[in-house]
Amino acid sequence: MLTVFGSVALDTIRTPKRTLKDVLGGAASYAAVSASRFAKTGLVAVVGTDLPERDRRTLGRHAVLDGLVTRPGKTFRYDGRYDRTLSVRTTIKTELNVLDGFRPTLPGTYASSRYVYLANNDPDQNLALLEKFGRARFSMCDTIDFWIKTKRSSVIKLMKRTDAAIMNDSEARLLAGEDNLARCAKKIRRESGVPFLIIKKGEHGALMFYKQKVVAAPGYLLEKVVDPTGAGDAFAGAMMGYLASQDSGVIRVRDLKRAMIFGNVMGSFAVERYGLDGLLGAGRKGAITGRADKYTSSFPH
Amino acid sequence: MLTVFGSVALDTIRTPKRTLKDVLGGAASYAAVSASRFAKTGLVAVVGTDLPERDRRTLGRHAVLDGLVTRPGKTFRYDGRYDRTLSVRTTIKTELNVLDGFRPTLPGTYASSRYVYLANNDPDQNLALLEKFGRARFSMCDTIDFWIKTKRSSVIKLMKRTDAAIMNDSEARLLAGEDNLARCAKKIRRESGVPFLIIKKGEHGALMFYKQKVVAAPGYLLEKVVDPTGAGDAFAGAMMGYLASQDSGVIRVRDLKRAMIFGNVMGSFAVERYGLDGLLGAGRKGAITGRADKYTSSFPH
Repeated sequence: MLTVFGSVALDTIRTPKRTLKDVLGGAASYAAVSASRFAKTGLVAVVGTDLPERDRRTLGRHAVLDGLVTRPGKTFRYDGRYDRTLSVRTTIKTELNVLDGFRPTLPGTYASSRYVYLANNDPDQNLALLEKFGRARFSMCDTIDFWIKTKRSSVIKLMKRTDAAIMNDSEARLLAGEDNLARCAKKIRRESGVPFLIIKKGEHGALMFYKQKVVAAPGYLLEKVVDPTGAGDAFAGAMMGYLASQDSGVIRVRDLKRAMIFGNVMGSFAVERYGLDGLLGAGRKGAITGRADKYTSSFPH
Repeated sequence: MLTVFGSVALDTIRTPKRTLKDVLGGAASYAAVSASRFAKTGLVAVVGTDLPERDRRTLGRHAVLDGLVTRPGKTFRYDGRYDRTLSVRTTIKTELNVLDGFRPTLPGTYASSRYVYLANNDPDQNLALLEKFGRARFSMCDTIDFWIKTKRSSVIKLMKRTDAAIMNDSEARLLAGEDNLARCAKKIRRESGVPFLIIKKGEHGALMFYKQKVVAAPGYLLEKVVDPTGAGDAFAGAMMGYLASQDSGVIRVRDLKRAMIFGNVMGSFAVERYGLDGLLGAGRKGAITGRADKYTSSFPH
């Protein structure tokens, strides 16, 4: 079983073609729905009393919700606008609401969970939850510009405790104070000691650094991208879900490589439709493995 | 044998760390030196009487120079400055000099050449040279923003006649009037009918489109990039050199995929040192195949 800790949000998504208001989103929703294609996934998150029942049912169809806490008040809200190319997003408004000061707890039903994904939450909250896992087999954390700027030492402290860290190229550059991604990875891994560092490059795919090696995964090419929201979370969720599905006694590099393939594939489903719809529509197992085969056969050899 | 037609230049390269004046460069120099690692390469180009004897000797050590014409006047000059990230170049000055109105001819010694690379020259000049090849086995052309803006129909006309076209992502977007690269490729291939279209994405690698398929090659990751000048020309030159070295009766997709690997590898050598030095230093065959192996083993599988 995999535990996913992160935000559940009501998003306003503005693309040049459409504006959607109060749609179900948040890093944990994307990661958990993506992960659930591969393994049993339990959510740890907080929502307000305003979360529509329909959205709760959507999450419940894919993840165990024993760790979904409802608190008086409003659900976390994010409002952002994409530019014409859909590659640059400008934040219009962020309302933490019930997320503010949330102290995550681990339900007893998650006791068998050996895989932990800590989304881009407050690194101290992530650390607090991670400490509740006695014997996690594999843990991965994400981060975000805001925490790197305001709680850098906690971000590093968290990475010292996880098996893997995942972040965007811009976040890696900010954390390392360096442009070149190979040097960024070296610096970040030296400072934090994190064994596996995955740097996501949006449509250009992702890099995974470990030991003295690198895995370079190009992006899955699509003709139609409508909404990039949650692509990175879907990527991370798919990686963790795949690893949990293998449940190897020890984490093997070959499993992590395969996890990156599914990360790219699920990221590609995520961006083809608005909000969570792309991931929700990628239910058929054949669709996922079919795309994974198409993806790996596109590499030159 | 491979024929490379393009510019030989004296470049001024300005990076945040160094400024080099009047260094040997130009698309044909990079492409030919890169290609010469794989196959016999003949140059078709024009220089002025000011080209230093040392530079001519450098070219002559790697390429057949029977097609290198010397005309009264000055050699083509390019002056450009890279930004801090080395990913954006601003042109300071371009002096066509002897390049202006050059009519390429094909020396008799190139008669056995069955492979033709037409760099980002005036598309009408490229067409004129291509017509002199009776039975080219494989031809590839490059282009550049300037020709797309000023001679778009000639660019398309040229692509109707070549087996492959190669260009940057920004050039593909300009030519297609479209952001999404998969859709760009579809439009460009539909309009020109070119069987193989390669779109280069700088450090992010390259895509090759053919039939209904795509090959996605990530970039070769480097810790140290000092000068991106000529990387794309080295990429194209290596592709053509590799294809010429195979000299298959018919062009096979698997040869083109392998050519992309060597394209990325030679591009990586090109950017590690200033000007042509990176390519000139990549002489040892073992260094090239070693890097090719390291590159292909970095793909997830």
